[in-house]
Amino acid sequence: MDQVKVGMIGYKFMGKAHSHAYKDLPMFFPESPKPVMQAICGRDPSGVEQAAAQFGWESIETDWRKLIQRDDIDLIDINAPSNAHKEIAVEAARAGKHLFCEKPLALTLSDAREMLDAAEASGVKHMVGFNYRFAPAVQLAKKLVADGRLGKLYHFRASFLQDFIVDPNFPLVWRLQKDIAGSGSHGDLGAHLIDLARFLVGEFHEVIGMSETFIKERPLAGEMSGLSASGSSEGPKGEVTVDDATLFLARFDNGVLGSFEASRFAPGHRCTNSFEINGSKGSVKFDFERMNELQVYFTDDAEDVQGFRRVLATDPSHAYMDAWWPPGHTIGFEHTFIHETLELLHAIRDNRQPVPNFRDGVQCQEVLEAVDKSIAERRWVKISEM
Amino acid sequence: MDQVKVGMIGYKFMGKAHSHAYKDLPMFFPESPKPVMQAICGRDPSGVEQAAAQFGWESIETDWRKLIQRDDIDLIDINAPSNAHKEIAVEAARAGKHLFCEKPLALTLSDAREMLDAAEASGVKHMVGFNYRFAPAVQLAKKLVADGRLGKLYHFRASFLQDFIVDPNFPLVWRLQKDIAGSGSHGDLGAHLIDLARFLVGEFHEVIGMSETFIKERPLAGEMSGLSASGSSEGPKGEVTVDDATLFLARFDNGVLGSFEASRFAPGHRCTNSFEINGSKGSVKFDFERMNELQVYFTDDAEDVQGFRRVLATDPSHAYMDAWWPPGHTIGFEHTFIHETLELLHAIRDNRQPVPNFRDGVQCQEVLEAVDKSIAERRWVKISEM
Amino acid sequence: MDQVKVGMIGYKFMGKAHSHAYKDLPMFFPESPKPVMQAICGRDPSGVEQAAAQFGWESIETDWRKLIQRDDIDLIDINAPSNAHKEIAVEAARAGKHLFCEKPLALTLSDAREMLDAAEASGVKHMVGFNYRFAPAVQLAKKLVADGRLGKLYHFRASFLQDFIVDPNFPLVWRLQKDIAGSGSHGDLGAHLIDLARFLVGEFHEVIGMSETFIKERPLAGEMSGLSASGSSEGPKGEVTVDDATLFLARFDNGVLGSFEASRFAPGHRCTNSFEINGSKGSVKFDFERMNELQVYFTDDAEDVQGFRRVLATDPSHAYMDAWWPPGHTIGFEHTFIHETLELLHAIRDNRQPVPNFRDGVQCQEVLEAVDKSIAERRWVKISEM
Amino acid sequence: MDQVKVGMIGYKFMGKAHSHAYKDLPMFFPESPKPVMQAICGRDPSGVEQAAAQFGWESIETDWRKLIQRDDIDLIDINAPSNAHKEIAVEAARAGKHLFCEKPLALTLSDAREMLDAAEASGVKHMVGFNYRFAPAVQLAKKLVADGRLGKLYHFRASFLQDFIVDPNFPLVWRLQKDIAGSGSHGDLGAHLIDLARFLVGEFHEVIGMSETFIKERPLAGEMSGLSASGSSEGPKGEVTVDDATLFLARFDNGVLGSFEASRFAPGHRCTNSFEINGSKGSVKFDFERMNELQVYFTDDAEDVQGFRRVLATDPSHAYMDAWWPPGHTIGFEHTFIHETLELLHAIRDNRQPVPNFRDGVQCQEVLEAVDKSIAERRWVKISEM
Repeated sequence: MDQVKVGMIGYKFMGKAHSHAYKDLPMFFPESPKPVMQAICGRDPSGVEQAAAQFGWESIETDWRKLIQRDDIDLIDINAPSNAHKEIAVEAARAGKHLFCEKPLALTLSDAREMLDAAEASGVKHMVGFNYRFAPAVQLAKKLVADGRLGKLYHFRASFLQDFIVDPNFPLVWRLQKDIAGSGSHGDLGAHLIDLARFLVGEFHEVIGMSETFIKERPLAGEMSGLSASGSSEGPKGEVTVDDATLFLARFDNGVLGSFEASRFAPGHRCTNSFEINGSKGSVKFDFERMNELQVYFTDDAEDVQGFRRVLATDPSHAYMDAWWPPGHTIGFEHTFIHETLELLHAIRDNRQPVPNFRDGVQCQEVLEAVDKSIAERRWVKISEM
Repeated sequence: MDQVKVGMIGYKFMGKAHSHAYKDLPMFFPESPKPVMQAICGRDPSGVEQAAAQFGWESIETDWRKLIQRDDIDLIDINAPSNAHKEIAVEAARAGKHLFCEKPLALTLSDAREMLDAAEASGVKHMVGFNYRFAPAVQLAKKLVADGRLGKLYHFRASFLQDFIVDPNFPLVWRLQKDIAGSGSHGDLGAHLIDLARFLVGEFHEVIGMSETFIKERPLAGEMSGLSASGSSEGPKGEVTVDDATLFLARFDNGVLGSFEASRFAPGHRCTNSFEINGSKGSVKFDFERMNELQVYFTDDAEDVQGFRRVLATDPSHAYMDAWWPPGHTIGFEHTFIHETLELLHAIRDNRQPVPNFRDGVQCQEVLEAVDKSIAERRWVKISEM
Repeated sequence: MDQVKVGMIGYKFMGKAHSHAYKDLPMFFPESPKPVMQAICGRDPSGVEQAAAQFGWESIETDWRKLIQRDDIDLIDINAPSNAHKEIAVEAARAGKHLFCEKPLALTLSDAREMLDAAEASGVKHMVGFNYRFAPAVQLAKKLVADGRLGKLYHFRASFLQDFIVDPNFPLVWRLQKDIAGSGSHGDLGAHLIDLARFLVGEFHEVIGMSETFIKERPLAGEMSGLSASGSSEGPKGEVTVDDATLFLARFDNGVLGSFEASRFAPGHRCTNSFEINGSKGSVKFDFERMNELQVYFTDDAEDVQGFRRVLATDPSHAYMDAWWPPGHTIGFEHTFIHETLELLHAIRDNRQPVPNFRDGVQCQEVLEAVDKSIAERRWVKISEM
Repeated sequence: MDQVKVGMIGYKFMGKAHSHAYKDLPMFFPESPKPVMQAICGRDPSGVEQAAAQFGWESIETDWRKLIQRDDIDLIDINAPSNAHKEIAVEAARAGKHLFCEKPLALTLSDAREMLDAAEASGVKHMVGFNYRFAPAVQLAKKLVADGRLGKLYHFRASFLQDFIVDPNFPLVWRLQKDIAGSGSHGDLGAHLIDLARFLVGEFHEVIGMSETFIKERPLAGEMSGLSASGSSEGPKGEVTVDDATLFLARFDNGVLGSFEASRFAPGHRCTNSFEINGSKGSVKFDFERMNELQVYFTDDAEDVQGFRRVLATDPSHAYMDAWWPPGHTIGFEHTFIHETLELLHAIRDNRQPVPNFRDGVQCQEVLEAVDKSIAERRWVKISEM
């Protein structure tokens, strides 16, 4: 197998990031199977045509059902709004297509499980888009944990902070509507934290959470991408039906204590996806706004020179970096998608499941819903209850 | 009133910090009533004599009951181990002495309330030693909040992380024994976070927590100061009866969401007492390891130059700093005690209660015990239940 | 004009970066004329064939003279080793091709001037590859200076520090040989600093420098890319004929005082291209290892909240960033080339010279050689002498 | 010898810092000989009386000649304005008093040498007040260099940046008048950098500098402390006769390349006394605004976790810190004077010269004047010429 023919559904923020990954990957990872940008699909013909031209797709479709029936497609890339994920994925799996679905896998746990079942039943490869795993600095954190260089783990604390909706006149975009987005900061940002925790620390045992919608009504908005828009204090308003912020505590199966916070009400934080791990032999700290860096501390450093090291994860010894530029030449957000896609293509070539896959998507959803349940019932909820 | 005659009980870590404050204060704040270092008290005659000589106290006592009866004492400074606070404070109040008690005020809420009642009944001034309030950078945070420059508050997240007991052979010092210390990281470190939250944000409404003792047995230790000691993996061990780490979520009366974590198991953190506040108009961040700095963000900065400002709180416009050195010349940990003492002396002179006082000590204890209760009962606990 | 047909000479580090820029630009800047990757040229047929396939070029050439004669080429992109720049550029200009030449423009000032003369004589567009100008954070610095927001400028201090040759057994690659590379850290790294200074501050008036080659002999090396290689302490050695570090002081025409340092002997600095500007109304600081950030200080901030702001230059208000990702999602090294290429394409479309162009290349070379002269003659040298 | 009786001349900024050191030292370093605050001297009787009362001196003098003749004085501490240093020091040496003189030792090299000669002739101990050596983080840098842990040194770059006179209406205080201050940023700030360089790297071989007075006239001022004052654009002005900024390059005897910059025109820098050292095995970075920290890098760290470590120099393994607070509890500017005084007292007790002493003061002055000469003559000047 030297190429994988892709059909992609969606062409906004994530559609652009995925398209870019397909386009750039062969240049930097020439040994990988090559992704062929076969067809892009969206409901609006002019929109999808423009996207196809701009992003470099060979053909277009306006009906995803047609797309998934095309013989010249190996892989269906789903980055349409979250409420459409399930139906597409299930049908595409039945059509025997490999699946690459953006997170959150689905709006509900039961939907997510249905997607996993369908994928497993058809035997296709399935991946879920937790791209932050693929930052080289995060990969370094994983390596240090996996190799025991942090010792026995004690703490994981993580927060994903943004500030793009602090203005009360920021309009009621789809991301603020539960029926489309599923949830607010919790599912959008918290899901990434949960996945990173599972990747780096292990499985969740129980959780208890707290949630708030600070601004309960906002100006109605026309169609927009969801991350930027201008609103007005005049005119009709609608109800915000998702959380502005969700926090929770967690206990992991291995005894680690976890603290999680997702908020879109943290002025000064454009995209602070951050975590810290403390173990018996050391600690690591990461902040996505400085995504090329990992702060690393070891307890066995000589006693007069102990301190967090600012490791710039751009050396050949760091994951993926020998494919890029010389040490010290940093990479950006979009590169995480290229590395993610590389994992998917390698998995298809090697006939194994990529990681993270739909099972990871389901397990993330279990934690998300356990937190929701803990909030609704004001009590600790075990993941095993879900 | 131009002087206050002090009798101090205790002469270890806090005794040294307080003594230094009494010694230095008149030099930098000459307008303040002058603290007279009248007598220092401890059970061990040779220890207290040495401390008196080294720290500059005029006389010594080995029986605190004698000390509080002396006519030449106006103020009793209590920094003996926490389990001795209540009895001393109650007796000293009855003897008509002003009170300055280190935190935690007492081992239990009921004890703390008894102390407050005694102080109020006798009409003396009473202060509790939450010294971190008195860092100029923290005072700046308070000023920004109080003046509305951060707008309506949304989030308070705080963690107090240390690493001095990560080694399993660190011995079973008194700080790790519940009958002497009351609690572990929660009462020692978490208490400071709770006080800072009350100072900066407002009153707690409800909490839910989680706690862990990672190392359950440790080598027995001889007498030591509690913050450093050498242990051995050989020889007898004893049970650790306090928490190594305690985390909790909180909702404040004004709707702010709070996240708190206290741990002594965070390698690389020698003394990271840190908090962040997010409000509708801005944010602030503080970390005690860089105690002269406050990170400040405003949403109304010009849009192309928005970012957290690193404010070095050493300018004449910052609290207390015109008494010290020129801008850029930083101060240290011990200065917080000098400023704290200044507040106490001013309050005595002005015939008002200092802030924070025993009422703050009680209210902090209410939150501490509400967290304990929430952990024991695995449910949200309202402060009004306490 | 809706497209520009490119023929590129060179396919190593810079060739890859330029190829990537041509490939990505249309996706993110669809309004720009489209660069067509017509032909790539190199002496080694198998090498250039592989590069063409990997990078996405339509055809190959092994003789640059043929390439510049092709009718289907509008623009010649020169990123071959520096000692080949002049001949190619002069010939290509005579052939009527637009020119895009990597820095340094040439090995000597006279060569650089000859290139400029040839380009001007033929009336083609000409650009020199000082890519760091095109980081959004650097553009922000430029905007703040140009708009007078830093007031009258007093200081410019800059250093470009790397550490890739600190090991004495790092081999004698072409970058360490004067006949190929022209100079060492001075021309490679210092040239970027000089260009940034000219971009941000203005023209140089006089300079005085100091230079050193710390490791005077190194193991001979086979062919390699110049930035990474493995050497051995055994075997034959050759003389290092370029500088390991060059420092100089400068006075600008407008009275600004400048300090410059370029070194490859600064352990811990993978690629610290950093500068600071101080003016009467404020300051800015930049470090390429955190290329998305600009530290900004204003003297007229409220007196209690003055401090350097960490501006993450990823907002729509920052140059180029509305073409990329939402705020807080950073970009990397390679993006500077895309923005640089955008300037070139816009200039060709608008029939104006791009900036920076060969004149900037010449002026940079004047400063480089003035520094060399100041070192050789141990005296201040005016740029007007050159 | 268990005590040293001090007579101090001067009672402004430095007088306060020194007084505080004498007061605090016995409390934290009880094994040291105890400084006895015998007499303080100044010309203005009411000013010196107030200082004596506030700082805790036993007696006062208004004529320094009387002071140095007193039998009950062992040590003369000179922190009067710089233009008075020489006469006092020479006379005090003749009177057999030990000497502790603030930097700069004198206004000219010849005066400094005369002071050294007088001190050596009389056989007294003599110290010069380069207090920054005594920050624990700087001591750590020294230790790393001395123990060879940075390998062979290549680079030393240092800048001391302040911003207190950026406002053109800041008045013409004594620090801006050559006849009193000797020089401006060069002697005030640059002198510290030169001393740190000598302490950490070794002796200077040759230098070349550049200097500027950006604001050439300022409002006349009344008497003030020299570091803060309010001026007015109305009213008479006087000429600024010292440098606002001085930069220089240096070559050390051991081949290290040095870069130095002192400026009072760097907005945002309240007191950035910073340096970096690069050696074959590692690097260190220091910034006085974060004086408790040293950034440390080692080339032999494991290749995937190389990075500058932020060492908080507050552990027992760091110089002086076991006398202070537990790890993570930082100290401030004033502590450098306590450690400096400790060195002086130990030297007197041990009958050896303290370090730094008048010889260091002279050698610093040689470099300062070599830089001045290099500026005047626009050429490299060897220290051996001085």
